[in-house]
Amino acid sequence: MELWNQYETVRSRSANICAPLKTEDYVVQPVVDVSPPKWHLGHTTWFFETFLLKPNVPGYTEFDPDYNFVFNSYYESVGARVIRTNRGNLSRPAVEDIMRYRQHVDAAMRDFLQGGLTPEQQALATLGLHHEEQHQELLYTDIKYILGHNPLFPAYDRHRVPAPAIPPQGPELLSIPEGVYEIGYAGEGFCFDNEQQRHRVYLQPYRISTRLVTNGEYLAFMEAGGYSSFRHWHAEGWDWVRQQQVSAPLYWHQVDGQWMYYTWQGLQPVAWDAPVCHVSYYEAAAYAAWKGMRLPTEFEWEAAAPQLQWGQRWEWTESAYLPYPGFIKAPGAIGEYNGKFMVNQQVLRGGSEVTSPGHSRITYRNFFHPHLRWQFMGIRLAGN
Amino acid sequence: MELWNQYETVRSRSANICAPLKTEDYVVQPVVDVSPPKWHLGHTTWFFETFLLKPNVPGYTEFDPDYNFVFNSYYESVGARVIRTNRGNLSRPAVEDIMRYRQHVDAAMRDFLQGGLTPEQQALATLGLHHEEQHQELLYTDIKYILGHNPLFPAYDRHRVPAPAIPPQGPELLSIPEGVYEIGYAGEGFCFDNEQQRHRVYLQPYRISTRLVTNGEYLAFMEAGGYSSFRHWHAEGWDWVRQQQVSAPLYWHQVDGQWMYYTWQGLQPVAWDAPVCHVSYYEAAAYAAWKGMRLPTEFEWEAAAPQLQWGQRWEWTESAYLPYPGFIKAPGAIGEYNGKFMVNQQVLRGGSEVTSPGHSRITYRNFFHPHLRWQFMGIRLAGN
Amino acid sequence: MELWNQYETVRSRSANICAPLKTEDYVVQPVVDVSPPKWHLGHTTWFFETFLLKPNVPGYTEFDPDYNFVFNSYYESVGARVIRTNRGNLSRPAVEDIMRYRQHVDAAMRDFLQGGLTPEQQALATLGLHHEEQHQELLYTDIKYILGHNPLFPAYDRHRVPAPAIPPQGPELLSIPEGVYEIGYAGEGFCFDNEQQRHRVYLQPYRISTRLVTNGEYLAFMEAGGYSSFRHWHAEGWDWVRQQQVSAPLYWHQVDGQWMYYTWQGLQPVAWDAPVCHVSYYEAAAYAAWKGMRLPTEFEWEAAAPQLQWGQRWEWTESAYLPYPGFIKAPGAIGEYNGKFMVNQQVLRGGSEVTSPGHSRITYRNFFHPHLRWQFMGIRLAGN
Amino acid sequence: MELWNQYETVRSRSANICAPLKTEDYVVQPVVDVSPPKWHLGHTTWFFETFLLKPNVPGYTEFDPDYNFVFNSYYESVGARVIRTNRGNLSRPAVEDIMRYRQHVDAAMRDFLQGGLTPEQQALATLGLHHEEQHQELLYTDIKYILGHNPLFPAYDRHRVPAPAIPPQGPELLSIPEGVYEIGYAGEGFCFDNEQQRHRVYLQPYRISTRLVTNGEYLAFMEAGGYSSFRHWHAEGWDWVRQQQVSAPLYWHQVDGQWMYYTWQGLQPVAWDAPVCHVSYYEAAAYAAWKGMRLPTEFEWEAAAPQLQWGQRWEWTESAYLPYPGFIKAPGAIGEYNGKFMVNQQVLRGGSEVTSPGHSRITYRNFFHPHLRWQFMGIRLAGN
Repeated sequence: MELWNQYETVRSRSANICAPLKTEDYVVQPVVDVSPPKWHLGHTTWFFETFLLKPNVPGYTEFDPDYNFVFNSYYESVGARVIRTNRGNLSRPAVEDIMRYRQHVDAAMRDFLQGGLTPEQQALATLGLHHEEQHQELLYTDIKYILGHNPLFPAYDRHRVPAPAIPPQGPELLSIPEGVYEIGYAGEGFCFDNEQQRHRVYLQPYRISTRLVTNGEYLAFMEAGGYSSFRHWHAEGWDWVRQQQVSAPLYWHQVDGQWMYYTWQGLQPVAWDAPVCHVSYYEAAAYAAWKGMRLPTEFEWEAAAPQLQWGQRWEWTESAYLPYPGFIKAPGAIGEYNGKFMVNQQVLRGGSEVTSPGHSRITYRNFFHPHLRWQFMGIRLAGN
Repeated sequence: MELWNQYETVRSRSANICAPLKTEDYVVQPVVDVSPPKWHLGHTTWFFETFLLKPNVPGYTEFDPDYNFVFNSYYESVGARVIRTNRGNLSRPAVEDIMRYRQHVDAAMRDFLQGGLTPEQQALATLGLHHEEQHQELLYTDIKYILGHNPLFPAYDRHRVPAPAIPPQGPELLSIPEGVYEIGYAGEGFCFDNEQQRHRVYLQPYRISTRLVTNGEYLAFMEAGGYSSFRHWHAEGWDWVRQQQVSAPLYWHQVDGQWMYYTWQGLQPVAWDAPVCHVSYYEAAAYAAWKGMRLPTEFEWEAAAPQLQWGQRWEWTESAYLPYPGFIKAPGAIGEYNGKFMVNQQVLRGGSEVTSPGHSRITYRNFFHPHLRWQFMGIRLAGN
Repeated sequence: MELWNQYETVRSRSANICAPLKTEDYVVQPVVDVSPPKWHLGHTTWFFETFLLKPNVPGYTEFDPDYNFVFNSYYESVGARVIRTNRGNLSRPAVEDIMRYRQHVDAAMRDFLQGGLTPEQQALATLGLHHEEQHQELLYTDIKYILGHNPLFPAYDRHRVPAPAIPPQGPELLSIPEGVYEIGYAGEGFCFDNEQQRHRVYLQPYRISTRLVTNGEYLAFMEAGGYSSFRHWHAEGWDWVRQQQVSAPLYWHQVDGQWMYYTWQGLQPVAWDAPVCHVSYYEAAAYAAWKGMRLPTEFEWEAAAPQLQWGQRWEWTESAYLPYPGFIKAPGAIGEYNGKFMVNQQVLRGGSEVTSPGHSRITYRNFFHPHLRWQFMGIRLAGN
Repeated sequence: MELWNQYETVRSRSANICAPLKTEDYVVQPVVDVSPPKWHLGHTTWFFETFLLKPNVPGYTEFDPDYNFVFNSYYESVGARVIRTNRGNLSRPAVEDIMRYRQHVDAAMRDFLQGGLTPEQQALATLGLHHEEQHQELLYTDIKYILGHNPLFPAYDRHRVPAPAIPPQGPELLSIPEGVYEIGYAGEGFCFDNEQQRHRVYLQPYRISTRLVTNGEYLAFMEAGGYSSFRHWHAEGWDWVRQQQVSAPLYWHQVDGQWMYYTWQGLQPVAWDAPVCHVSYYEAAAYAAWKGMRLPTEFEWEAAAPQLQWGQRWEWTESAYLPYPGFIKAPGAIGEYNGKFMVNQQVLRGGSEVTSPGHSRITYRNFFHPHLRWQFMGIRLAGN
């Protein structure tokens, strides 16, 4: 029963995020990393239908067998799928069809969740909700990308109040002593497989900033020629800067000599005291090098987190996304959730203004390729 | 006044073509050659606003200055434009916005067309209508591509009766005598600049089929291994076959051992007596070579046309798209209409079931790159 | 016996062209259109071995069976081949191996050619010599590309005297009357299949320049902003200019404010009175449009040729490369020689300073894709 | 004086590696990761000229100023350079020019090294020698790639005895206890900056194989369908398998039903007891997952190394290439040596049959992108 309440809350939140959209906004995919909002709405529904209803509910009527083809994301175990770059080419199923799909699955899930579930089914249903919460953050970031790359710069919600800026203070560096620290999830509640096993890590002494780098501080890097000299960049970062002609964070535009950026309310003057956002790992690392600092490792972050101000931005760490000691991949399709992405990505810690409630905890490991910027990514400095 | 009647007829026809669509269908661009239907609706409107209303109607209020950026296609003279590959990434302007844009421009055009127009303004308005009629054919072909490449294969109109098949008859070859022929437009009515000047062409004696190649005849080529041997192909055609893994006309699918193709009514069994459609120039030329024949030149076609059955398919010719002797490019943006495409394209003659009324005449020159197939393109044989 | 003398003359000329090279120069392939010189030397030899010796000489010992794989160019009929982009990746066979290959084949050809040949064998041997002469021109142009794109700009031959410049005269335009002209090869000697059948063409009255456009005249186009405005370009030409950032003919470099170009003697100041060279079809057509003229068609060129100064540059024509009426493709591999390239290419007429003796005649049809510039290509103007 | 002896030894070893080559073999670059041998010979020489002779030897005469352009690899600090993909397009400087360049620099280095050097100069000269030793391994791997991808499969040295195979034994797993281990270089001799600082790492208990996976064991993975199911692969690894159509280690060819591989002696039957070689990180990780094991981290490897059999293959580890705690980038161009590559690469430990003497030590960190296979890379298993 409690699971059904959770289900209802999570599911309605997805719909609410899309409420300000026009039908057309649900359809497009301006770059490969962004998915059309209607795809997110269908895919999260497909997860419940595929992994819970079809195997467990006798007599359940599949909504449309072709949807398996359209809404599978990357689960190779469950058959053919539309390749990722084609998601934005599909005008059908229409938004209204997907809404009916959601209702169809929700009705069946109501009966299912209110019945007696095995612990394994409960775990899978919970995973499905966390999965949808992850896609809620993607809904926000993909919608921002879709509207923010339209030449008309339409607002998502003219009345949405921006997150309050933090008054800039000198970078207060916390000193953390050398020693063995416990890392990874230890509680009773839900966590992803990549947060386990809890294990020991030896940390050398280090310093870590209690706050994030601001737009104003980042502007100083830009004005000091940060984007025009290779000196502080990784080699691949510098190639990226030149090939993509990057000269500012994503969503920044210079209009009549003034720096503006795209926000939920449309184009606005940059708020200099707000934490810088939408920077790549390459930019974060270059900024840190320019300051004579570095990024924290994910272990340094986790060890210091109780003493830090965090939660407004995902924070790039110097750690590559790798399995923890003792990491075990679940059998079957669910095992494809995390483990197979553990190469060529960087860990981010913290959480953002668009992170769903269940996705902010000290042990949570987010991960993206180092050139990506469309998530709400920011910078925290560390040093030796 | 007559011009206003024509205007009303043409403009409402564009809207009617789109009537069976869902909002989502207006938005997507599955390949670069296909444009979103809403873009066609906006672009044809932009033509009237840019070339007639803004220069000629004092006090005309532009609907939205940003639309110039969104709806310019390739007119370099009139400023920046969204690059072609990005048309499918734009969710805004929404369909309803574009419909209001059409109403806004139509209202202004009504006043304008009902006033006293200079001959030059009349010519430009007429060109605008022919321009929109060309885009009507593109609307049909692009809608077919969008729906026909959706894994759900939705029908455009379940009740649309297919064009009647032609009973297959032996290829009746007409013999045309050697001599000097007059080619190009000579009448008083509208024609495009590329149909002029009318000029003399010397033709050697030739034979030309009175009818088009059928699906059944083309199947024989496929079953004889036409797609698996280089022998009858142009070198570039053979590269195209292998790189794109082409093995049948566009929209053909083998389902449970039966050949189906996508039609306005959804997937249907191939009608063997209907003229083959959606083949590239490479396929047309390879088929002809396999038959020991060739394609006609555009001049041979035009000289024989009065004796031919034509109008169901655009027919690939062996002629490259080049200027006629004495061709003159109009000054200004309108001069970009045809001349600048006269390289690397092949001429097609005839017309199709989705060609607008004003676009079927013996001198009409259509043109596409040789690998393209999404237009309604067919094959007529010729020989010496 | 006379054929053997011809053979000896042609074959030794290929080796002489390469005499100034270092071993390393024989190996590289800086772009796909350029082949390594050692590949040309092997490929022309392979032609004689494959089409004459192996089918006709009992007991002939193939030099190395693997060479068929390495030295086939595009003859699909005779088996697998190294794809074109890989030619520059092959360090073996070494140059000395290829020289031994040439000697091996030459020795066998000596006996073969001095025996009694059927008319068909004679024709094929003659074709082999013309084939090698074509590759001699490619040897020159590919060597120029290899050395001219090396940052050290090494000379091919410091003592080679450049072709004398032509004193600039006002563009003397010849007027050619309207009428029916005979086009195509009619004599008894060798010609390529694409020069036939001789046939009638009706020409409207036209004017054609008796001389080629000079470097000085082309500089005026550059200085008038020819490369920075779309106005005179084909749409594909303008895309090419922007994507490739073209701003001058190939091999031109601005050094300390002075225009230099790469010649057989290394970098030299541009000779303003010499005919402009190494321009693409797009550049030739844009230049002509800027002058209010156009390029001649290949038929106009051929009809006027006896009255023209020609032979220093291949001249772009406005004609696409298409079969003449009655064109017949030879059966078997030899039939792949010309016909399969008859799409997307432009005809060039005339000949250049590096054209072999047998490849300059009024009916000769050279052909290249419109963006290519590494051949010795120039511009002649025509008008109505 | 001792430094001069070392110099002489190292420099002559580079020339010896190339002794079996033909001139043509020095020139080509079949893929971007492989450099032409002559480039390695020039680049290592350029290092001494640029970083030691030019700044420190008054009156030193640069061999050729243009060489700076040709032989700079990735040092952005020291000016323009030929982009990496163009190295194989350069026929000049010729091999004999580069040999003279080496003699010129060696003569100047002899005087320089036999004079009184500051400790900093000594360190830089030592770095230059280690740099050349790294390129010696690349010379071997690049030569193998060049010859092994030639359709003639020429031998490098027909008489070179292959490294002896190891008799297969059951995978003897060593158990290493939990605890804090010291990692990183601690001695007095030379090490690269990336091996420092020496620091403490906490390891959970783990098991590690004392030997490498053999060709025979890897064949079992292939025969069990390892390359045809996604199950054991990273997502990016599986994409790589499908896009590159990978189905065996690099250099393996199935000839008449028998597995052969390219060796220094040409094509040979695969030696089943030899350690598998030329596999990517993706293949190594998939093999380990198929065995229910994993790869060791670089820390686990280093802690266990004294008890392991190692040195025949570079061993992929599960560790991404990241800075050690306290890592300090040297100022100036030398600081570009390692730090800027610390993203998106995996660490390899151990050494191979073609590793130069100074490049095998327990703390040595080699690194490559996970898809690369042309180095002598093998697999060691680990587990929890």
